[in-house]
Amino acid sequence: MAMNRLANLTSFLVMDIARQARALPNAIHFEIGEPDLKPSPKVLEALLEATQKAQVQYTESLGLMALREKIAAFYQRRYGVTVAPQRIALTVGTSGAFLVTYALLLNAGERLLLTDPSYPCYKNFAYVLDAQPVFVPIDATSRYQLSVAQAEYAVRTQAGIKAMQISSPTNPIGNLYDVENLRDLMAFCENHGLYFISDEIYHGLVYDQPAHTALEFSDNAIVINSFSKYFCLPGLRLGWVILPEALMRQAEMLLQNLYIAAPTLSQYGALAAFDEDYLAQVTATYRTRRDYLYAELAQLFKIEAKPDGAFYIWANISDYATDSQAFARHLLQEIQVATTPGIDFGQHQAQAYLRFAYTRELPHLQEGVARLRRLLPP
Amino acid sequence: MAMNRLANLTSFLVMDIARQARALPNAIHFEIGEPDLKPSPKVLEALLEATQKAQVQYTESLGLMALREKIAAFYQRRYGVTVAPQRIALTVGTSGAFLVTYALLLNAGERLLLTDPSYPCYKNFAYVLDAQPVFVPIDATSRYQLSVAQAEYAVRTQAGIKAMQISSPTNPIGNLYDVENLRDLMAFCENHGLYFISDEIYHGLVYDQPAHTALEFSDNAIVINSFSKYFCLPGLRLGWVILPEALMRQAEMLLQNLYIAAPTLSQYGALAAFDEDYLAQVTATYRTRRDYLYAELAQLFKIEAKPDGAFYIWANISDYATDSQAFARHLLQEIQVATTPGIDFGQHQAQAYLRFAYTRELPHLQEGVARLRRLLPP
Repeated sequence: MAMNRLANLTSFLVMDIARQARALPNAIHFEIGEPDLKPSPKVLEALLEATQKAQVQYTESLGLMALREKIAAFYQRRYGVTVAPQRIALTVGTSGAFLVTYALLLNAGERLLLTDPSYPCYKNFAYVLDAQPVFVPIDATSRYQLSVAQAEYAVRTQAGIKAMQISSPTNPIGNLYDVENLRDLMAFCENHGLYFISDEIYHGLVYDQPAHTALEFSDNAIVINSFSKYFCLPGLRLGWVILPEALMRQAEMLLQNLYIAAPTLSQYGALAAFDEDYLAQVTATYRTRRDYLYAELAQLFKIEAKPDGAFYIWANISDYATDSQAFARHLLQEIQVATTPGIDFGQHQAQAYLRFAYTRELPHLQEGVARLRRLLPP
Repeated sequence: MAMNRLANLTSFLVMDIARQARALPNAIHFEIGEPDLKPSPKVLEALLEATQKAQVQYTESLGLMALREKIAAFYQRRYGVTVAPQRIALTVGTSGAFLVTYALLLNAGERLLLTDPSYPCYKNFAYVLDAQPVFVPIDATSRYQLSVAQAEYAVRTQAGIKAMQISSPTNPIGNLYDVENLRDLMAFCENHGLYFISDEIYHGLVYDQPAHTALEFSDNAIVINSFSKYFCLPGLRLGWVILPEALMRQAEMLLQNLYIAAPTLSQYGALAAFDEDYLAQVTATYRTRRDYLYAELAQLFKIEAKPDGAFYIWANISDYATDSQAFARHLLQEIQVATTPGIDFGQHQAQAYLRFAYTRELPHLQEGVARLRRLLPP
């Protein structure tokens, strides 16, 4: 019998919760992992102009060279890293980048090192391709970072691990990897013939220190990012992946066959997305919210890792409940507060956590906090 | 050793040829499988309005219900078929529909019945998922249709065939399946527990007779279509798949995980795409070109199947050459006429054919014909 590629597939719970919450007119939305801020007006202008020109033909499969060049320039400006635009492929969101990357690197039965918790779709991309995730638990004891010792143990005890995938800042915790640890993990991968995949989608939404791209440390890193978070354009479905040059031809074939190309208007719109003044405001807005919500939630829940970035807070609810999904349902029913249960992100200590997103304006967050205060015993 | 999912992957040759042709300022483009006509002005208005409203958030994974309802109404109006909008999922082009459908139906090692020739990506979606295409040759002797006898033979001799995939009108030939044959193939699939997948992307571009959707004959048919051809919106990357109700929950999970959702602006734009007056003009324009180019090419090449639809002519070049790729290269070099070699679409008689697309205005087609006349011996 063939393995059932869907047997382990998990629903992306947060989408189901978001749907329930949308049906409640007074819901407070801490569940949503997409920015509420409008994108730069320059992007909207570029989209209008491209629409007026009826830019609805396919682009090349790797995407508009002008946009790939702008992305390369962004890496130079932001990180001081030189990336050839030829190594950048535009994708249908980071979703497209993950599918293409995993299809490139992993054959059926081969393994992908992931952290538990992590973004729930990573493992599901692997399952669809009959590749096997190997979960390494991360928690407060390691400041929510995978360690070289853990990776070494995984590689020693499980055959066929071909790649390691992390995100920094992480989803759902929001912590950044320490630079030394990032460098050590990458060196470990190089030494053991593993590909290192760095999901940097929350770069830009980092509040207290500069973020480092994995490309600062090796050209063999595979870096994935998108216009969905920092650039406030989730519905454009536009991301990118930066690959070692040797993988580009196969990546292009996969993109041709699996996508033809990323959406054309989105690509023209994104040409205007590197609007630094506007982006600085985006960061400042989310920093203010992070400061507010972290201070408030820390009085209600144990928060072991103050988030460095992204727009999430990982709150330990074990003083109140032992089942995160039941507790999330309880909050939704009793006070119309929508959150994402920890079990959306893995198994390890997952029942003890909720993820709170600060993707709404301060008064909305304040109302949510007030409701939580009323419901939860002091 | 794990099977290499990329080992059999083929480059989508037409994309490479298109790139070479774009570099030639005086090239004649018979290679391009995308409409040159602008979309309905109503679509552009809807896109402008959605952009002004900054509609760049994610939609639900299955897509905007308003658009799914419009698609359902289109099936009622066009074919007299009632389809619940709940059975319609919006996808990232037909590309997204194929990936989700094959992932739903086929586990690793299981088989998919395809015709040879056919759209080159079908098999590559299967390869990426470690599913195995079973190719059934079609040619002039069967008027380029798969027959029940062929399907029966395939199922009798090869284990694990789970689904049959056809397109009508076909790419690359443009012929429609006879209604009786379509019905017989579908009955065969029902009787043998196979899923029947009908790629109807060229519906609307059918010139001499009404086209029939597979949904007229069974609710178990899986129908795939998009806004890329008839609606002249390839760059929107928006398609749809209609599935049996029992598959919808798993389809939604796959869409959530693999795509999050189809592009948002595209979905709002497509709300205005069912502009019947405009669509009638699109059909008339391509009919005129079909009539012209078919009459002309029939004097230069053997054309065994006058195309009923799509925007392709499948021309037998065996009076001139025995290698379709070399002949296509010859035409591109000598007279800057770009075509697609038959081998892009399969193996069966593939060296004997070129595909000509009529996706440019008449004077452009006329210039191409004049160049061919000058080059080819009478």
